[in-house]
Amino acid sequence: MDVRVVLVEPKRDENVGAVARVMKNFGFYSLYIVGDSVGEKAFYVAYHAEDVLEKCKFVRTLEEAIAGSHIVVGTTAKTASENNVLRNFVEPERLREIVEGKNGILTLVFGREDFGLLNEELRKCDFIVHIPANPAYPVLNLSHAVAVVLYELSKSSRKGKGNVGSVAGSNAVKLASVEEKEKLLAHFREFLERVEAREHRVERTLLVLKRIFGRAGITSREVRTLHGMLRKALRALEMHKE
Amino acid sequence: MDVRVVLVEPKRDENVGAVARVMKNFGFYSLYIVGDSVGEKAFYVAYHAEDVLEKCKFVRTLEEAIAGSHIVVGTTAKTASENNVLRNFVEPERLREIVEGKNGILTLVFGREDFGLLNEELRKCDFIVHIPANPAYPVLNLSHAVAVVLYELSKSSRKGKGNVGSVAGSNAVKLASVEEKEKLLAHFREFLERVEAREHRVERTLLVLKRIFGRAGITSREVRTLHGMLRKALRALEMHKE
Repeated sequence: MDVRVVLVEPKRDENVGAVARVMKNFGFYSLYIVGDSVGEKAFYVAYHAEDVLEKCKFVRTLEEAIAGSHIVVGTTAKTASENNVLRNFVEPERLREIVEGKNGILTLVFGREDFGLLNEELRKCDFIVHIPANPAYPVLNLSHAVAVVLYELSKSSRKGKGNVGSVAGSNAVKLASVEEKEKLLAHFREFLERVEAREHRVERTLLVLKRIFGRAGITSREVRTLHGMLRKALRALEMHKE
Repeated sequence: MDVRVVLVEPKRDENVGAVARVMKNFGFYSLYIVGDSVGEKAFYVAYHAEDVLEKCKFVRTLEEAIAGSHIVVGTTAKTASENNVLRNFVEPERLREIVEGKNGILTLVFGREDFGLLNEELRKCDFIVHIPANPAYPVLNLSHAVAVVLYELSKSSRKGKGNVGSVAGSNAVKLASVEEKEKLLAHFREFLERVEAREHRVERTLLVLKRIFGRAGITSREVRTLHGMLRKALRALEMHKE
């Protein structure tokens, strides 16, 4: 989905700038502010994301800010008592699952730094997202809340599971295939059988290595490096054989 | 696991304060700063998290900051080309999976606002975490990066799947400590120097092994098995020396 971020009456320019920056970081560019203007300091904090601030739309009401969207999601740090339907919430992860693969505009509404969104504003939202946090201090800084929600949404596009956001696929390293890992273990076996007489120790060590490589998600390149090490070791052992 | 956050030479007090706040938001309290002091502004921004700042430890070197940890994770906004073993990375989600259910201290190292962590600092880390972001502007604000990683880690404790950031799990495996891993790598170095003449290949292979062990979350028991393998190999090489 296309994502729109709405800030309702943000009080501090630094926060608006920080929101613009993290939006661009995660590949989101559509910012609406319910308010009049934003000061110079926001541009300073936005750093390389002035473009987001420059294109930001100022509107007078939340209605204008959400007009044209397909899903409107409010955010709150105050969680619901079980009876309070209004503040029933999902976690950011669930939000991602909900919107994955959908088309249209997803609008995320963030409230004021001090008292968040009013009940009448929450009522205009399709549902509410809450970031689970420490009961001793559950209120995230505004831009941190935006960061967490956008980070979670940006996962969809990377997984190729949906079309939320626009972050290009990460330049992931190439993981070793099953065959590559088997060849590496066969090479380790050759080496181990050369230095360890007890067969059960060989088997045990191979299993340990298999587990380590598996958990590590060993890459093709790393496999090649370890082959190099084993080749050298076997050659050194061979040289002294007779 | 218990989580420790290390900030290496942070330049702006506001960022330190924002980090303290988001740490408390997600229930993490252990902050180390490689640096001298932190100004008043940090306390203002930390808001209700002054306690995190007050208990924060100032140290002179990264070594002091990571001492006693079990897994040391560096962070970087600069991703690896496939050939750059040093900057191979996992995403925050994978970090969470790696540490879930483990015991010990997980230390997260965040670099300077302007140029991050130096290569020599990254080398001291077991592995690297990178937050996938917009290639047009991939560098997150320091406290946003901390927010995203801690948010991801905090999921474990909520799911009851693990013990990150909360009480220790009972049947958790014992991870190798930093010291145990260093001894293992020193043993590998001894072995490699015996079979590989080119110093840069030795260094490269050691770094590959460090990364694999780090990502795997190698256990004390696995470390012992690999020591056994290396002892045998060195003995076999020794026997044929003359």
